[in-house]
Amino acid sequence: MQNKLIIVRYGEIGVKSRKVRGRFERKLIENIKTVIDGSVKLKQGRIFISPKDLDKAVYFLQKIPGIVSYSPAVVTRTDHDSIKELIETYTGELVEEGIFSGEDSFAIRCRRVGEHDFTSQEMAAYCGSVVYEITKSKVDLSNPDFELFVEVRDDKTYIYHQKIQGLGGLPVGTQGRVIVLISTGIDSPVAAFLMMKRGCSVTLLNFNTYPYTSRSDEKILKIHQKLKEYSAGAKFNLYQVDYGDFLHKCIEEAPGRMTCVLCKSGMYQIAEKIAPKDKALAIVDGSSLGQVASQTLPNILATRYSAQIPILSPLIGMDKVEIENLAKKIGTYDISIIQESDCAAVPRHPETHAELPLVLESLVKIDAADDFDKAVFNLKVLK
Amino acid sequence: MQNKLIIVRYGEIGVKSRKVRGRFERKLIENIKTVIDGSVKLKQGRIFISPKDLDKAVYFLQKIPGIVSYSPAVVTRTDHDSIKELIETYTGELVEEGIFSGEDSFAIRCRRVGEHDFTSQEMAAYCGSVVYEITKSKVDLSNPDFELFVEVRDDKTYIYHQKIQGLGGLPVGTQGRVIVLISTGIDSPVAAFLMMKRGCSVTLLNFNTYPYTSRSDEKILKIHQKLKEYSAGAKFNLYQVDYGDFLHKCIEEAPGRMTCVLCKSGMYQIAEKIAPKDKALAIVDGSSLGQVASQTLPNILATRYSAQIPILSPLIGMDKVEIENLAKKIGTYDISIIQESDCAAVPRHPETHAELPLVLESLVKIDAADDFDKAVFNLKVLK
Repeated sequence: MQNKLIIVRYGEIGVKSRKVRGRFERKLIENIKTVIDGSVKLKQGRIFISPKDLDKAVYFLQKIPGIVSYSPAVVTRTDHDSIKELIETYTGELVEEGIFSGEDSFAIRCRRVGEHDFTSQEMAAYCGSVVYEITKSKVDLSNPDFELFVEVRDDKTYIYHQKIQGLGGLPVGTQGRVIVLISTGIDSPVAAFLMMKRGCSVTLLNFNTYPYTSRSDEKILKIHQKLKEYSAGAKFNLYQVDYGDFLHKCIEEAPGRMTCVLCKSGMYQIAEKIAPKDKALAIVDGSSLGQVASQTLPNILATRYSAQIPILSPLIGMDKVEIENLAKKIGTYDISIIQESDCAAVPRHPETHAELPLVLESLVKIDAADDFDKAVFNLKVLK
Repeated sequence: MQNKLIIVRYGEIGVKSRKVRGRFERKLIENIKTVIDGSVKLKQGRIFISPKDLDKAVYFLQKIPGIVSYSPAVVTRTDHDSIKELIETYTGELVEEGIFSGEDSFAIRCRRVGEHDFTSQEMAAYCGSVVYEITKSKVDLSNPDFELFVEVRDDKTYIYHQKIQGLGGLPVGTQGRVIVLISTGIDSPVAAFLMMKRGCSVTLLNFNTYPYTSRSDEKILKIHQKLKEYSAGAKFNLYQVDYGDFLHKCIEEAPGRMTCVLCKSGMYQIAEKIAPKDKALAIVDGSSLGQVASQTLPNILATRYSAQIPILSPLIGMDKVEIENLAKKIGTYDISIIQESDCAAVPRHPETHAELPLVLESLVKIDAADDFDKAVFNLKVLK
């Protein structure tokens, strides 16, 4: 079939001021262009894509934040004969593919933008009769098995039958950059994804806790690769800090129960030091309140105290099962669940009610600031 | 029917250490008892409730965080004759109520805990034959229209056909207290709900911005009342701060663009001062990144800088439509959308890239600390 294209709808952008909306639209178009080859044009509050490879475009649009829904469509001139001809071909192909048949009831949904010598209802009735001629299907406007959409926009008319749901959210790159504490677990990749979905550019920061865990470079690279699919061409660095020596010091020189608290506190402080390198304005982590021993309110208070930039925890109010479902949806779950040993640095009874003065005192006692500086100095750029 | 009860399943509690699990289970039972009249007992990893009013209990269990699912059930002694008799009565009633008929295929799902002289499969087959005698329904184990659950637990056997989904999460009161900045809008009540769902006790703090908005006491009291349904008996205060004078000062004495930033910064600082009164360990707000002009990363950094306790934003990674769906689910949406005037203090061009030094300087210049102290001193206890 000729003249295949995709109509893209975007959501929250629509409610912004004119100036902001323009900036968001331009960014979304730019993001689409980084992954889809073909023409991408804005018109009347929709984005029209004529991709070189339609199937590939349909796949990639699924992963671009800021898109609410999209429809592969065909287009022709706005006159009755052309529309009739296009509907005949389009319906014919759907019947051939088994998507639509005489058994199914149907409805025509017609929208119209511009001046025409017919109403939307008249055009819908006309298109309905064309479809009926081919399939002899029954019309059912309230609860049809099949819907055919006819969008008349000035001198062009678009026909489609699918509305594919997009990610929603805002275009990546409209909200500045955050630095995400990323591990090979299930939660933090989901946190990274949610911030990308809300328009953030993301830098990933991984803490290599070898020899207390197995080496996880391969797994973290896979997670980076999977999440990169949602980054719509934005710079998507993956940094790594060697953290084993610091953990060793925590275990040897600080009270045993405190290891996890000092570990987390150090992660925030190191992330804050690295943030300016990529102009990141906030730290993001995968904390979910009460999910593990260390994620209690007193521990959150004690571990975050020394960080000056905001720490955002998009999963803080979510249940494990909700986080897992998101991880499955974005494709990181299968990577995260690959078996690895638990962290051997976790004490038998980790502190769950850390006291701030004790945490600060311990960090001074073990001269943590020195380790944090070293960590930043030796930062590895994995991607 | 005799011996009606409810079997309650809980989720994440199950994965905690034995000590923590015990504490969580006791809290959940305590929470259930505050809203349901009757006996509430823990046995074999389930909670068994014999309520005085079954329908009321079924309704209230829907609103108790920590419950994954629950089933209204009937119980009898574990012997074939008693089970047969109970299934006959139970199935008979379902048929009468039109819930199950001979047209429906069915399956028996049998679980067994304890020592018995029959296997689960044997009991399932036996119960299946009893049902068949009544309805002549076809058995379909893989895709039945109707499932009947038979749980044999030692000398008691429970029969039910429903698994009602609960809220999930953790029992309120297991995670300490947070202070939630609550407005009459759609977002902040959802943020409060999510933190209750994760086990937090909640104090609500409202800022009365009259005369820049209409008086909203009635609406905020309604939101408090609705959210209280999820608080499972925990202390659930609603405080209010008169904020109009401070807003007036911001408008008159600071750069016009800064009003929203100074307003938000003040809210955090006042909340931090009030937090110790209720032993709250964190501030919670309804920020969703990029949703409105003030919710940008630079503004989040600048407004949160002066607060020392953590600020948690459970909605930070959510889209407006997702937040609205949650608001509808918990019942606050209809209250929030009652028409009211927009805040008249919002400038024509609100700052979206606040610079921290300028914010701090402005707060000093307008002597905000004095206003914050006054606000705390004049705190109103609405509930």
